[in-house]
Amino acid sequence: MQPTTLAAVRRTSFADMPCSVARSLEVVGEWWTPLIVRDALFGVRRFEEFQARLGIARNVLAQRLDQLVEEGVLVRVPYQERPVRHEYRLTDKGRDLWHVLTALRQWGDRWVAPDGPPVRLLHERCGRTVTAVPVCSHCGEELRPQELRPTRGPGFRPIGVGDEHIATG
Amino acid sequence: MQPTTLAAVRRTSFADMPCSVARSLEVVGEWWTPLIVRDALFGVRRFEEFQARLGIARNVLAQRLDQLVEEGVLVRVPYQERPVRHEYRLTDKGRDLWHVLTALRQWGDRWVAPDGPPVRLLHERCGRTVTAVPVCSHCGEELRPQELRPTRGPGFRPIGVGDEHIATG
Repeated sequence: MQPTTLAAVRRTSFADMPCSVARSLEVVGEWWTPLIVRDALFGVRRFEEFQARLGIARNVLAQRLDQLVEEGVLVRVPYQERPVRHEYRLTDKGRDLWHVLTALRQWGDRWVAPDGPPVRLLHERCGRTVTAVPVCSHCGEELRPQELRPTRGPGFRPIGVGDEHIATG
Repeated sequence: MQPTTLAAVRRTSFADMPCSVARSLEVVGEWWTPLIVRDALFGVRRFEEFQARLGIARNVLAQRLDQLVEEGVLVRVPYQERPVRHEYRLTDKGRDLWHVLTALRQWGDRWVAPDGPPVRLLHERCGRTVTAVPVCSHCGEELRPQELRPTRGPGFRPIGVGDEHIATG
């Protein structure tokens, strides 16, 4: 039977999918979550500051922050004793999302930024405004999607019809 | 006044945010959309095949596909005359999402794939199973987030408090 509500679809499908894209979306796919991670990568740590930047309802923000702590993307750390106040810091797992956010930002800069990129990245090592270019971990050549073929990894299980697209290699 | 429903939050905030991450999420941030793009990048084109792979309600899938056509990520092309049947093909804008999906998959492989990566990428150019490594477009060194500093681009407008994090450079 088809699930008939979006909530039911969300609950029944993502966690079981043997796919790292789907599982990642389970962690960071909620609408506001990537923007919270974006701001955390920019150095934002406190509830009030997230709230002011995002213009998000406080109950929604609190729920998303709790979820990110539970998933191990953020950690909640006291920064003041009386009264106790907490801030949110990225874990290694959270900081590792910068590549995802950078790729997403660059796509947006290219396709949905009519006034030009709102933010640019200065590479302190070479002193230039740069972009991230994906290269091959083995040969170092720039990766082009037409030269990449998906193959089955150790965690592979078929998702459905069409997995003949994924070779046994 | 605070918006009190998630729908209201979604409507009022994202399109106006001068941020390429937020604007990209406006296009591909709906829960199922990245998985539709993932399957399209794997070569899936037909409604029935998307439906079978994703296990998604048909009305939700139809709505997401329509939205992706409207945003210019997919194009709807007839593949049969009588009766007319259509398939969905990625545009250049859509294909350009592969870097985002690859970064998301690699994060998932690293942090949420207890049985190992479900899918690996074979780089036909060098014949190896590889990952995408983000390097600097200027100096070619591997990018490390602690060496990157956000600066204001031509499309910059302050989002809220905390934008002192974004230098004028």
